[in-house]
Amino acid sequence: MILDGLLTSPLMAELKTPLLEQIASACHTKDFQEGDVLCHQNDVAHSVWLVLHGWVKLTRETLDGGDAVWDVLGTGHLVGLETLTPPFTNTTRAVAVSDTTTLVIPHSVLRQLIDTHGEFARLVLKHVLRQQQDERLEIEHRTHQTAPQRIGCFLLKLAGTPAKGKVDIQLPFDKGLLAARLGMQPETFSRALAKLKQETGLRMTGAHVEMDDVDALRAYTCGACSGTYPCHGHA
Amino acid sequence: MILDGLLTSPLMAELKTPLLEQIASACHTKDFQEGDVLCHQNDVAHSVWLVLHGWVKLTRETLDGGDAVWDVLGTGHLVGLETLTPPFTNTTRAVAVSDTTTLVIPHSVLRQLIDTHGEFARLVLKHVLRQQQDERLEIEHRTHQTAPQRIGCFLLKLAGTPAKGKVDIQLPFDKGLLAARLGMQPETFSRALAKLKQETGLRMTGAHVEMDDVDALRAYTCGACSGTYPCHGHA
Repeated sequence: MILDGLLTSPLMAELKTPLLEQIASACHTKDFQEGDVLCHQNDVAHSVWLVLHGWVKLTRETLDGGDAVWDVLGTGHLVGLETLTPPFTNTTRAVAVSDTTTLVIPHSVLRQLIDTHGEFARLVLKHVLRQQQDERLEIEHRTHQTAPQRIGCFLLKLAGTPAKGKVDIQLPFDKGLLAARLGMQPETFSRALAKLKQETGLRMTGAHVEMDDVDALRAYTCGACSGTYPCHGHA
Repeated sequence: MILDGLLTSPLMAELKTPLLEQIASACHTKDFQEGDVLCHQNDVAHSVWLVLHGWVKLTRETLDGGDAVWDVLGTGHLVGLETLTPPFTNTTRAVAVSDTTTLVIPHSVLRQLIDTHGEFARLVLKHVLRQQQDERLEIEHRTHQTAPQRIGCFLLKLAGTPAKGKVDIQLPFDKGLLAARLGMQPETFSRALAKLKQETGLRMTGAHVEMDDVDALRAYTCGACSGTYPCHGHA
């Protein structure tokens, strides 16, 4: 069960069996309810979490007391990988935004593997360099995509690419958080969503999104992006 | 001379002498004039460049033929580090935006070191995880900082932090590219610059920027950021 859980992470899925079993033997699962805090910003890191089910929000406090949403991570994503670098402290506050099951991987185990297994260090490096490309693309999107396109891009990734034909998806968390995740004010988000519906024919009822033809969304969304479809980035 | 050049890179400066000398022995310097192309997007990567002097612009083509500026890198920065991950191709087009001197580091040398030296792989990982934090902060800034604050943030890093009192700096490249680097339309940039001057008392004549008190700029700029001053990110 723990081994199966580990395999939902693209990074862990690349490990050879003995290493995977070594990590699995040190892990345990932990459940969080909506609103539970996994870790606080600036605390010494004790764990890296692999999200098995649910969603975890990463936030940071700005100097003037605001709350900046850095990311919202779902199944297969690792929370806290960046804490494996000095000063080994949590860089964000991590909060469950739905009932969430995680695999708790002790920080000490991953640090020791990085220090002693060149192969593991290389795989983490490869994984982080790929993540970095996603983040650079995200920076690009903030400039080159319109707000409706940014929502469309999120929905496309949520649909799981490559998607074809009619698509039904469920928004994984509330629209306020989705707006924050996409770097929009709630009013901008509402206006952009209305425009996206009008331009692509997608329908949204509560958290339920329906598209008769995902190609229409792709045609509308992907033109202003320098990536290639199907994209491997996370929603 | 080549060894001194390598040491301008924070990553290379952490290497032990024998490894540093091994890399230095495989490098050569190469000059580029304004407009010269270091590499094209999607080509197989042959080199990583360390910028010794000047500035290099990284761009990517969007599907609809636009040109997205991903970054502009100056002294001490490595161009193409992300090509060390499969598929080992250039992820951006890199173009000199001023007369530029680089140290050419053969791709094969770095790949071999990553494959055979766990210590080198670990240092690259540490470096990339730090870069990733800068990029996440940049994503945050696109949402939480105003346009004048984003210009102010760039100028603060250019001034070299921690800076105190009166500061004179020279813009390293033209305002059009600076606007693109900060993800702004030229008109937004002009309006934001006017506002920044008015709010902080900084003066700009051509490419020359003068501040009587850098603290005024810091007070205006840093409130909406979740980082801590002095920041280690690059301009």
